[in-house]
Amino acid sequence: MSKLVIVGTVAFDAIETPFGKTDKILGGAATYIGLSASQFGTDGAIVSVVGGDFPQKYIDMLVSKGMNVEGLEIVPDGKTFFWSGKYHNDMNTRDTLATELNVLEKFNPVVPDSYKDAEVVMLGNLHPMVQMGVINQMNNPKMVVLDTMNFWMDIALDDLKKVIAKVDVITINDEEARQLSGEYSLVTASKKIMEMGPQYVVIKKGEHGALIFHKEEMFFAPALPLAEVFDPTGAGDTFAGGFTGYLAKTGDYSFENMKRAIIYGSCLASFCVEKFGTERMQNLSENEVEKRLQQFQRLTQFELNT
Amino acid sequence: MSKLVIVGTVAFDAIETPFGKTDKILGGAATYIGLSASQFGTDGAIVSVVGGDFPQKYIDMLVSKGMNVEGLEIVPDGKTFFWSGKYHNDMNTRDTLATELNVLEKFNPVVPDSYKDAEVVMLGNLHPMVQMGVINQMNNPKMVVLDTMNFWMDIALDDLKKVIAKVDVITINDEEARQLSGEYSLVTASKKIMEMGPQYVVIKKGEHGALIFHKEEMFFAPALPLAEVFDPTGAGDTFAGGFTGYLAKTGDYSFENMKRAIIYGSCLASFCVEKFGTERMQNLSENEVEKRLQQFQRLTQFELNT
Repeated sequence: MSKLVIVGTVAFDAIETPFGKTDKILGGAATYIGLSASQFGTDGAIVSVVGGDFPQKYIDMLVSKGMNVEGLEIVPDGKTFFWSGKYHNDMNTRDTLATELNVLEKFNPVVPDSYKDAEVVMLGNLHPMVQMGVINQMNNPKMVVLDTMNFWMDIALDDLKKVIAKVDVITINDEEARQLSGEYSLVTASKKIMEMGPQYVVIKKGEHGALIFHKEEMFFAPALPLAEVFDPTGAGDTFAGGFTGYLAKTGDYSFENMKRAIIYGSCLASFCVEKFGTERMQNLSENEVEKRLQQFQRLTQFELNT
Repeated sequence: MSKLVIVGTVAFDAIETPFGKTDKILGGAATYIGLSASQFGTDGAIVSVVGGDFPQKYIDMLVSKGMNVEGLEIVPDGKTFFWSGKYHNDMNTRDTLATELNVLEKFNPVVPDSYKDAEVVMLGNLHPMVQMGVINQMNNPKMVVLDTMNFWMDIALDDLKKVIAKVDVITINDEEARQLSGEYSLVTASKKIMEMGPQYVVIKKGEHGALIFHKEEMFFAPALPLAEVFDPTGAGDTFAGGFTGYLAKTGDYSFENMKRAIIYGSCLASFCVEKFGTERMQNLSENEVEKRLQQFQRLTQFELNT
């Protein structure tokens, strides 16, 4: 088993979906990534920042899941990052109602010394220069995974390209892959993005699953069709947490194992959306994950008569 | 091997895509279905109608592929059905520029006597009452597959529901499944549609693949991600032809074999879109299909370490 460094937001979210709405609840990319990776008993460290208003019970919960929080800075007189959004009826699109950066504005990530030798680094969605700051603190990691979004392509493309050149894997959604590459076909888009640096390109298509590209190879993990999607918040980060958590657990960076890793990511993301916020991910048993993996197998595995 | 009856349009299409445009070329649902099913050497009969303007060489081509054309009525003083459409840049949406029903307006399908004992019937997209007319001519078929579209839901829903109640499989796209069921989730939509009659519901998601539902089971066939989609016309019919052609060839109607059948359908559809109209499907070798099936396997098959 290898160590995993997780960088990203730890936040308050207020969410509205057709099924209801929440007050400020626990959210943030690093939170979802950590909860998801913890399913494998991964030795992970969360590097992030919160304000004095952040409840100790949330920190305790992350620790109880096996997450190291030495790198979770607390700014006593600051306020925690806050995001609020409202999903449309189709659950695939949403409006951002509020974004209050607060303590995130001056965030300077510090990787704990005992995690600088981690083999796997998950750079959750943040300013590219913050992500770069984390890479620079690591001693020769084997697998650096970058998540990003169109926002950084719009306002910090040059910085983003510098980080992209340094990572092994990039995870983005289909529209972002098109924006970044200028290509509509995801096959062509992934080739162009690989030329920017990463050996692996993971393209997330939400309810339509995820693709991983590597050299001339590609592999597809479907999303599990669900009778009810309650709240999509955090699904992409949960996917990333499953992906990197599995890689760290196994220490196997072959393409065969990458395939399993995106199946695990997709499997865990299918739980995340069943309840509001992190609720489902906080209460998830190994047995439930095992059963759902079998559903993924039945969903996609076939034998040809030859 | 069982016989296959194919009902649908045989038509002229004029197509415009970002890659170019065609004059009137060979098109029509039954044409694509027949060309696709012929890949398996299936004993198929096309039941359709054309006008005196329809070139004999097209009929000869269908016969050369092994299709029986006794049920292809020629109306000497009539004109062949004509459809014209223009695809948008994303290739997923299109505008219909012209629809001239012509001989289709008075089409009264006649199944050749020697095919009334066919086990598999593919009802291509046509007025539901024309589809019903074909069902009524068959002697106890084992697998009746219905394709339809939102147009009939809008103008002939009651008739459509009567036909749906009589078939074993319905194939529709995701938006149509939602319209027909009133449910957004495809899992819930398929359950409601199964309550209308069919034991199997196939939901086509275009570039996002296809799902088949049966009782509590579901299976997913991806679409092959392609570097270039040249012309999507006929992809859904090619999928249906691969699906029913494979079922007729094998005579095996188990769910395990249905899975293989939608993989074959998806595989053949991936060729259809590579050239304008029927060009690619007319010139497709067994070896090419075999190689692409292996690509589908590499795309989706994984082994869990347990």
